Amino acid sequence: MQAERLLKQIEFIKQIDQLKYIMRKTRLFNSDRHENDAEHSWHLAMMAIVLAEHADEKVDLLKVMKMVLIHDIVEIDAGDTFLYDNTKNHVNTEEELIAAKRIFGLLPEDQATDLIDVWQEFEAGETKEARFAKALDRLEPVMQNVSNNGGTWAEYDVELSRVIDKICVIEKGSSTLWDYTQEIVNESAEKGILRSK
Amino acid sequence: MQAERLLKQIEFIKQIDQLKYIMRKTRLFNSDRHENDAEHSWHLAMMAIVLAEHADEKVDLLKVMKMVLIHDIVEIDAGDTFLYDNTKNHVNTEEELIAAKRIFGLLPEDQATDLIDVWQEFEAGETKEARFAKALDRLEPVMQNVSNNGGTWAEYDVELSRVIDKICVIEKGSSTLWDYTQEIVNESAEKGILRSK
Repeated sequence: MQAERLLKQIEFIKQIDQLKYIMRKTRLFNSDRHENDAEHSWHLAMMAIVLAEHADEKVDLLKVMKMVLIHDIVEIDAGDTFLYDNTKNHVNTEEELIAAKRIFGLLPEDQATDLIDVWQEFEAGETKEARFAKALDRLEPVMQNVSNNGGTWAEYDVELSRVIDKICVIEKGSSTLWDYTQEIVNESAEKGILRSK
Repeated sequence: MQAERLLKQIEFIKQIDQLKYIMRKTRLFNSDRHENDAEHSWHLAMMAIVLAEHADEKVDLLKVMKMVLIHDIVEIDAGDTFLYDNTKNHVNTEEELIAAKRIFGLLPEDQATDLIDVWQEFEAGETKEARFAKALDRLEPVMQNVSNNGGTWAEYDVELSRVIDKICVIEKGSSTLWDYTQEIVNESAEKGILRSK
């Protein structure tokens, strides 16, 4: 029983290696190199450690870290959806739910249920931990785009109002981080690396 | 004051992006592609979540996760030291301590002190959390080498006894994971993908 349980966990650990091949549209800081989902997830977990004090409500840091570490694992099967994609909404799609059930389902049942719950809580974005985790997930690419002369904003010709529309969820998790984000986004518009209209 | 604190945290978050460029000798599962430190750290954090129940003593999972997420950050300045390097020991070198002080020192002082402490606790490998975190850090490349027909063992002509010598610290964190590791290492020797003598 113990052995069977461990072998399921090992199989999960092997299969999630695939997250390292899922490429995001955004690029590393001051770089042309695209970021992959595993690197992105690591960076968000580091942001959670360092920025947790700025959450509007005190958060359970362990839960936030679990959320950001697993939030993109469904993309192993479902692929990355670009935030500014015009044809596909980044919502909790049926495809992602099937992916969650397959991938987390490799684990022993209690762990599978736990991680699917954590992922769904993140996707719903309602609890204080989910709101803060989503704030971090939105903030990282903004910082990357600023460092890359507009990055995906310039590359996909996204204008300021659309950026604000997508990233304003940061406010639901942290007013401090939202103030900071607005500041760097507005500076980008002033500099002309983000189109104002 | 608040603004100054946040700006220090943001600077740290930007600079640790460099971890994504530090390449390890080991390669991804069933792959020719080398793993970078950020991906490796993410993978260890996922292993911590899934395998924590196998620690010999109940561990503080949040602390283990912090350890594995930050354990290689010093390599941004000090570079990766290969486990089977013949000329340089992988120990808590002076160079790594200088790196820790510079990089974690970008943070507000309380956070810098906290993360340097966590890193040093990991390096010392004495507490139950450090022993378990080190077990995970040794297990991942073993699994990768097994998946890659011997991987770095074959590539650098490392023999069984030397492998055992380096990875036996796994036993200090988890007897269950140590049993599993010995099993797959011995199988590798039997298959001839790890030289027995």
